[in-house]
Amino acid sequence: MRGAVLHAPGDVRVEDRPDPKIEQPTDAVIRLAATCVCGSDLWPYRGIEDVTGPAPMGHEYVGVVEEVGSEVRDIRPGQFVVGSFFASDNTCEICRAGYQPSCPHAEIMGTLGAQAEYLRVPLADGTLVATPDTPSDDLVPSLLAASDVLGTGWFGAVAAEAGPGKTVAVVGDGAVGLLGMLAASQLGAERIIAMSRHEPRQQLAREFGATDIVTERGNEGVAAIKEMTNGFGAHSVIEAVGTQESMMQAINSTRPGGHVGYVGVSHDVSLPGLPLFFSHVHLHGGPAPVRRFLPELIDLITRREIDPGKVFDLTLPLNQAAEGYRAMDERRAIKTLLTP
Amino acid sequence: MRGAVLHAPGDVRVEDRPDPKIEQPTDAVIRLAATCVCGSDLWPYRGIEDVTGPAPMGHEYVGVVEEVGSEVRDIRPGQFVVGSFFASDNTCEICRAGYQPSCPHAEIMGTLGAQAEYLRVPLADGTLVATPDTPSDDLVPSLLAASDVLGTGWFGAVAAEAGPGKTVAVVGDGAVGLLGMLAASQLGAERIIAMSRHEPRQQLAREFGATDIVTERGNEGVAAIKEMTNGFGAHSVIEAVGTQESMMQAINSTRPGGHVGYVGVSHDVSLPGLPLFFSHVHLHGGPAPVRRFLPELIDLITRREIDPGKVFDLTLPLNQAAEGYRAMDERRAIKTLLTP
Repeated sequence: MRGAVLHAPGDVRVEDRPDPKIEQPTDAVIRLAATCVCGSDLWPYRGIEDVTGPAPMGHEYVGVVEEVGSEVRDIRPGQFVVGSFFASDNTCEICRAGYQPSCPHAEIMGTLGAQAEYLRVPLADGTLVATPDTPSDDLVPSLLAASDVLGTGWFGAVAAEAGPGKTVAVVGDGAVGLLGMLAASQLGAERIIAMSRHEPRQQLAREFGATDIVTERGNEGVAAIKEMTNGFGAHSVIEAVGTQESMMQAINSTRPGGHVGYVGVSHDVSLPGLPLFFSHVHLHGGPAPVRRFLPELIDLITRREIDPGKVFDLTLPLNQAAEGYRAMDERRAIKTLLTP
Repeated sequence: MRGAVLHAPGDVRVEDRPDPKIEQPTDAVIRLAATCVCGSDLWPYRGIEDVTGPAPMGHEYVGVVEEVGSEVRDIRPGQFVVGSFFASDNTCEICRAGYQPSCPHAEIMGTLGAQAEYLRVPLADGTLVATPDTPSDDLVPSLLAASDVLGTGWFGAVAAEAGPGKTVAVVGDGAVGLLGMLAASQLGAERIIAMSRHEPRQQLAREFGATDIVTERGNEGVAAIKEMTNGFGAHSVIEAVGTQESMMQAINSTRPGGHVGYVGVSHDVSLPGLPLFFSHVHLHGGPAPVRRFLPELIDLITRREIDPGKVFDLTLPLNQAAEGYRAMDERRAIKTLLTP
């Protein structure tokens, strides 16, 4: 089959890879209907994360089940499925508490390479959720978004305790930040402040429910948020970048007793103890337990109540994955969908 | 009047200080029934925090109201009162949300010097809570504990979401850690693990509700907690020290999705972003909003349901404050009560 492989920073190639097959009795193999490039794929692409040898890429996926292992009970060939970017058993104490990426049996899907024609999914019953019917083509991008960016933005909003009566600020206007706004809106937030300086993203932010835009960053961004909130800061702040500046911007934009939900993968972040102590914020986040939210998200999408697929502003055939990476790296595209 | 003053690390003297008087119409002046030495007083005493010139010491206090300013409405002369170590208006949005130390009008009591015969309390109506009657002498130590260490341990337990069905681990066996155990027990925790290697403190821990003792620290302590919790870690961990080691011990002892309540004042703490991200813990803490809990704590104490005053294992006249500091510094005493 064909699949995207990162050979070195900036060097993504679509090439022949071995067809995945059932390796464990709990595996499924799916034929991908769509896959995409994640903001986190850009870290190794940019050389900020180490690239050690050729690495299959991609961890976001929807598709049709081809085959299942002998111990798979709930997932069946022919079903259209959405999966999380972490495989998990979904039966242990940690999964039942809703933290599937920390399941003791968790496997990160990125190493399996979802930017491809086929994908092996471990722990299929715990990882995949089938849609009620085979969805129409126009729903596929939104279902694909649920596999990571929507689920991640949703977790950010839940971790930030976005809800009725709350002012929610969002640091980061990438796909995750934008879908954090959509989530905050769905969760009933009263006011949603997008921190964004890119006009096309501001527009999408408003479509997803943002009520206000703040273009300033860092301390000036914090000052702007405080000015809009009686000097106190937002009740809830979603952090969707993962840098030192964005984390401090998020913490400092949050009022005492408020909640920071951080979902940008931390890169060289170090939180100073004393300012954090006196900030009085709640801090929660990490890799999103997409599996926790998938049933609800699939329901919202198939009932056409939300349209998170709008974050895909570039669609390319899988063979042109390299251009898809380039467009996101140069911020010409918010998010690239790849069709195998 | 007489009051304790820190002149240099290790040099506490009880000397004549000006009698406090009403300075603002919202002030009260109280005659102290008891005061005490806090673990946080040891930071400047040990020279770990800077000492810049002679500094009045102490921020924990109970006593009888002598005089109130013209705008004080609820607090009256003759009442026996307990106050928080932060003065606050208790009417603003932040106070009403229960974060009084972050009130925009907050004043830290430490600079006013409660280790003395009299104390000026700003924002008396927002800061002080009167007991139902003048308490009998044997209740005074427990009411004094409510002023800081009990309220702080209680906040740690609340921030860690201690409650029914939960396993709670406590890092730190000082007065705050011990009273965190009492709080966790009152909040209904199923299992309370004291991390302590000091036999007399272990005994008090058990009296306050600890069900298990772990004597290991650092990574070995973390391993011990995990072994007791199916390999996952505790649901709730109270951090009551404030060092890098204790914070990491707390975070690493918490299961994914669990809660760390940290109330030890952070000293040179820096939290690494990536391990925190993948820990999936909730982190909340800071200076305890004692005022939030005071009515409930006073009620529990005056009904004799809890006896937090047991943390005072040394009682000295105010004039011997220096010995009270020394005994705590050398860990001969858990906490020193001073009688003016």
